[in-house]
Amino acid sequence: MKFISKIALSAVALAMMVSPAMAEKTVKWKLAMTWPSTLTPLASPPAKVAKLVEEMSGGKFIIRIEGKEKHKAPLGILDMVKGGQYQMGHSGSYYWKGKDISTIFFTTIPFGMTTAEQYAWFYYDEGMKYMQQVYDRFNVLNFPGGNTGVQMGGWFKKEINSITDLKGLKMRIPGLAGEVFAKLGVNVTNIPAGELYTSLDRGTIDALEWVGPGMDIKMGFHKVAPFYYTGWHEPASEMQFMINKRAFEKLSPENKAILLTAMKAASADMYYENFAASANAWEQMKSEFPNIKVKTFPLPVLKEMKKATDELLDSYAAKDEQFKTILESQRTFMKKARAWTIISDYNYIKTTMDVE
Amino acid sequence: MKFISKIALSAVALAMMVSPAMAEKTVKWKLAMTWPSTLTPLASPPAKVAKLVEEMSGGKFIIRIEGKEKHKAPLGILDMVKGGQYQMGHSGSYYWKGKDISTIFFTTIPFGMTTAEQYAWFYYDEGMKYMQQVYDRFNVLNFPGGNTGVQMGGWFKKEINSITDLKGLKMRIPGLAGEVFAKLGVNVTNIPAGELYTSLDRGTIDALEWVGPGMDIKMGFHKVAPFYYTGWHEPASEMQFMINKRAFEKLSPENKAILLTAMKAASADMYYENFAASANAWEQMKSEFPNIKVKTFPLPVLKEMKKATDELLDSYAAKDEQFKTILESQRTFMKKARAWTIISDYNYIKTTMDVE
Repeated sequence: MKFISKIALSAVALAMMVSPAMAEKTVKWKLAMTWPSTLTPLASPPAKVAKLVEEMSGGKFIIRIEGKEKHKAPLGILDMVKGGQYQMGHSGSYYWKGKDISTIFFTTIPFGMTTAEQYAWFYYDEGMKYMQQVYDRFNVLNFPGGNTGVQMGGWFKKEINSITDLKGLKMRIPGLAGEVFAKLGVNVTNIPAGELYTSLDRGTIDALEWVGPGMDIKMGFHKVAPFYYTGWHEPASEMQFMINKRAFEKLSPENKAILLTAMKAASADMYYENFAASANAWEQMKSEFPNIKVKTFPLPVLKEMKKATDELLDSYAAKDEQFKTILESQRTFMKKARAWTIISDYNYIKTTMDVE
Repeated sequence: MKFISKIALSAVALAMMVSPAMAEKTVKWKLAMTWPSTLTPLASPPAKVAKLVEEMSGGKFIIRIEGKEKHKAPLGILDMVKGGQYQMGHSGSYYWKGKDISTIFFTTIPFGMTTAEQYAWFYYDEGMKYMQQVYDRFNVLNFPGGNTGVQMGGWFKKEINSITDLKGLKMRIPGLAGEVFAKLGVNVTNIPAGELYTSLDRGTIDALEWVGPGMDIKMGFHKVAPFYYTGWHEPASEMQFMINKRAFEKLSPENKAILLTAMKAASADMYYENFAASANAWEQMKSEFPNIKVKTFPLPVLKEMKKATDELLDSYAAKDEQFKTILESQRTFMKKARAWTIISDYNYIKTTMDVE
């Protein structure tokens, strides 16, 4: 201290003024997510964003993450980000369908787009525009937050051979898919995650839907329900990052760009992470439980599911102009996107199967 | 000037010393790419990286991009980055197969992995490790640089009904796929991009392979060759970002993180951009040229292609230990990844086709 002259002290004081970088305070944000902190790959995008943002800003932008185990409000994320208790959230848009039915389009819909089709719609068609329109009323900005790819149709204790087999079946399946199954006579219930395995094992329920091999293997369902049905209801479930608008506006241009880029990189990465986890888990399940049978629902059942889905979507569209607009945007884009998917990805996989 | 006292001047001088951010010089890099600057979507990832890096660094890290029209050395990118004339490059790894045959694994191989499978291999299996091993000898760092998805099998003036129809056929198709076709009796040639349309129109060649609808439509091939064959040879062509190692090591930790994150976001985005472009272009082509017929090569032809591919890969593996190791890594991962692709994406698309 004794070496510092009066002049030098003034100099340091002035340096604080003339150097915006030095004067700039560290930005500290909190992010609340629907998942427990350990639930990968869903919990991975927020963790990656926090790490990347800290590294890119040289420690001047810090995001602290709170999982469900801490804030205890997994389905309160949107309200907490809207209210500013958290600057950021990570969740699934379709959880807010009670607040606005149009939120479902930014996760996935039954018989809807694949991951590639949906990202093309988000970034190179009308998706981002409509997503922001829907979330404007909540005063939050909303961005893609990672995709699970095709989710499996669920674990069933008995094989489904006809519509009749669905009547009275007790199944845990949430969301629009649950509404479709209810239309087909299924007794749809919801059960907390922690009780699912026991409920399925003891026959309290006959079937349930979860995600895909990578996440399902941790739950152990394959040990008690041997029929694993292929997907129809969540072809590309996209998670969401939401940001309180006022908080975002206060960020420097650099921090805005850093946050947006980190979210885009981390959301793309979740798809790769979940894909690898499912490939590995599926190989393990099959070898440890060779009695598992992969089934696709019989065509008459699928046709009824498709009919029920279209009726549900059209009935929402009849009551809600915004829903109708976005449904039409998705249907229009999906029509041309699917034609391309079929001649590219679908035909390629078929070719590789045929030559074996 | 007269208001600035001696003390204030000392203060400013000191501020320059105590504030690293102020003292830090702007980093200026140059990137050379194989493509002309206007050739989207291939030219898009470098443009996006440059924009994002500038925004995130607050203008302190600038990358100037030079397309083929400027540096005139589209296939000299690796040498120029290795030599330090450019700090960065954007190209396709399989162009360097003459320098090291193992470079092909980081673009795509015939009957190889899909985009999702390959990204899972890169980021959550052994892909990044082997890619860096191969590029270490060139003293460059190498990263995924954007994926085209499944490339189409090409435009043919006449339908291919058997192996016999391939004998003596004149076709422009580069790389490993060209070697496979040569084994099947095709007269494989290479022709500069600017002369392709005329060559096909006049019958100098009978067929050619390019990319997919999004890029093919600009070339006009659909106007002169009505048979459009589905893909088998480039199921997931990944571009590459390369970085001179010494240049990268000189970057600050913040700039390193900024560059890595920008590359990851921009490479994911190219896949979405090309997917949307192909969906739109395919719709346009079909409506303007309803005579276009999408064909898949007959099964006996595909089986010969598969056999020739395996023979080629195995013959390289017999001569090159590193090639053998990476081929085994891809084959092992692909086996489990493909099982998951079939029960997830493939079954989903099949389901949506069946219910229509």
